[in-house]
Amino acid sequence: MTDAFSDRSPSLADHTVGILGGTGEQGRGLAYRFAQSGVSVLIGSRDRARAEVTAAEIGLGVAGLDNVSVVNAASIVIAAVPWAGHHELLVSLTSELAGKIVVDCVNPLGFDEQGAFPLVVPEGSAAQQAELLLPESTVVAAFHHVSAVLLNDRSIDQLDGDILVLGDDRAATDVVQALADRITGMRGVYAGRLRNAHQIEAFTANLISVNRRYRTHAGVRLAGV
Amino acid sequence: MTDAFSDRSPSLADHTVGILGGTGEQGRGLAYRFAQSGVSVLIGSRDRARAEVTAAEIGLGVAGLDNVSVVNAASIVIAAVPWAGHHELLVSLTSELAGKIVVDCVNPLGFDEQGAFPLVVPEGSAAQQAELLLPESTVVAAFHHVSAVLLNDRSIDQLDGDILVLGDDRAATDVVQALADRITGMRGVYAGRLRNAHQIEAFTANLISVNRRYRTHAGVRLAGV
Repeated sequence: MTDAFSDRSPSLADHTVGILGGTGEQGRGLAYRFAQSGVSVLIGSRDRARAEVTAAEIGLGVAGLDNVSVVNAASIVIAAVPWAGHHELLVSLTSELAGKIVVDCVNPLGFDEQGAFPLVVPEGSAAQQAELLLPESTVVAAFHHVSAVLLNDRSIDQLDGDILVLGDDRAATDVVQALADRITGMRGVYAGRLRNAHQIEAFTANLISVNRRYRTHAGVRLAGV
Repeated sequence: MTDAFSDRSPSLADHTVGILGGTGEQGRGLAYRFAQSGVSVLIGSRDRARAEVTAAEIGLGVAGLDNVSVVNAASIVIAAVPWAGHHELLVSLTSELAGKIVVDCVNPLGFDEQGAFPLVVPEGSAAQQAELLLPESTVVAAFHHVSAVLLNDRSIDQLDGDILVLGDDRAATDVVQALADRITGMRGVYAGRLRNAHQIEAFTANLISVNRRYRTHAGVRLAGV
């Protein structure tokens, strides 16, 4: 059933996507896929020189800047940082992020000898922490389950899976779904409000178990959509 | 990558599946699909007469009994009851369930004007509550996301989706995966330990949002497995 898809596909022509944590594997992989599809992409780092090096490695017109400059130039900002740095990063950019769509893809996970498990987040989820820290931004949760290994593998033209997009603002989730659609083979699917983000983040622990058992890089698809 | 599938497929020939809550939509639908595939199925209810009526409606050799008789005759027991009755049911059958595989498919959810949301479960999840209440049983979590509407629709021969199977005992999860495989079109996939069951149960809230947005009965598939 694709009716609900056909009536939304906001243009990304006027958008610039900024990726905080763009020198990490997840950020770098998203930057590559978006830029490949013609989206304007900036990657940010605390260390501008590192961002420039990574941007040059990605190519495709991607530019590297310090985090503040990336946020100032972007309309959609993806926070692709480790959970350990999530709170500090957002607090440091609260005023710059006002009025922007902030996409949270952070998975708060712990690891022990039995594998991965979700960490308790007092706010409920990383996305809800972002929402509380950024009252003047529009927070959307997405891109939790896509494998950085596959994103960065340039021998793979076509990825496989859905990007679950969560948020309380329809215009913003529509834009992020359109952005997800730009990754060839993937599809942005609305999957609920931010209050239901915890289990989407935590589900990454299950995918890690799946990957270990089946020796793969598993993603998620929604059947029947 | 299907290597991990080929080396396990326990026979179900010596198993009888008992479904507690077998008169509800989920239980009835599972009973129908299992019986259709040739599995021996009993459905239980506190009210034996109701179980008998439902079993007769399902046909295919399914028998209806009171809950205690079902547990005594079954080697695999599926608890397909509403969350509100989960604790009480398991406590009432603790000794009868000893030595059995108990499959928990219960989703502890609340509902308000914004849709569904996961309830806080002190034990972590319904499956972990079962594990604590049933120390002499082997608890497996599975069948959370399959649509009762589709299970019960006899015009549909082929369902679409994966059954995520969680548990800490490999032999038991293998058996439950084999059982899931009996639903035509579906596949049992190992998806982690019981400590990662919460997000699988809670994910049902997201599927409810998906169903509302896309007017469908969504299920889950794992890409890359």
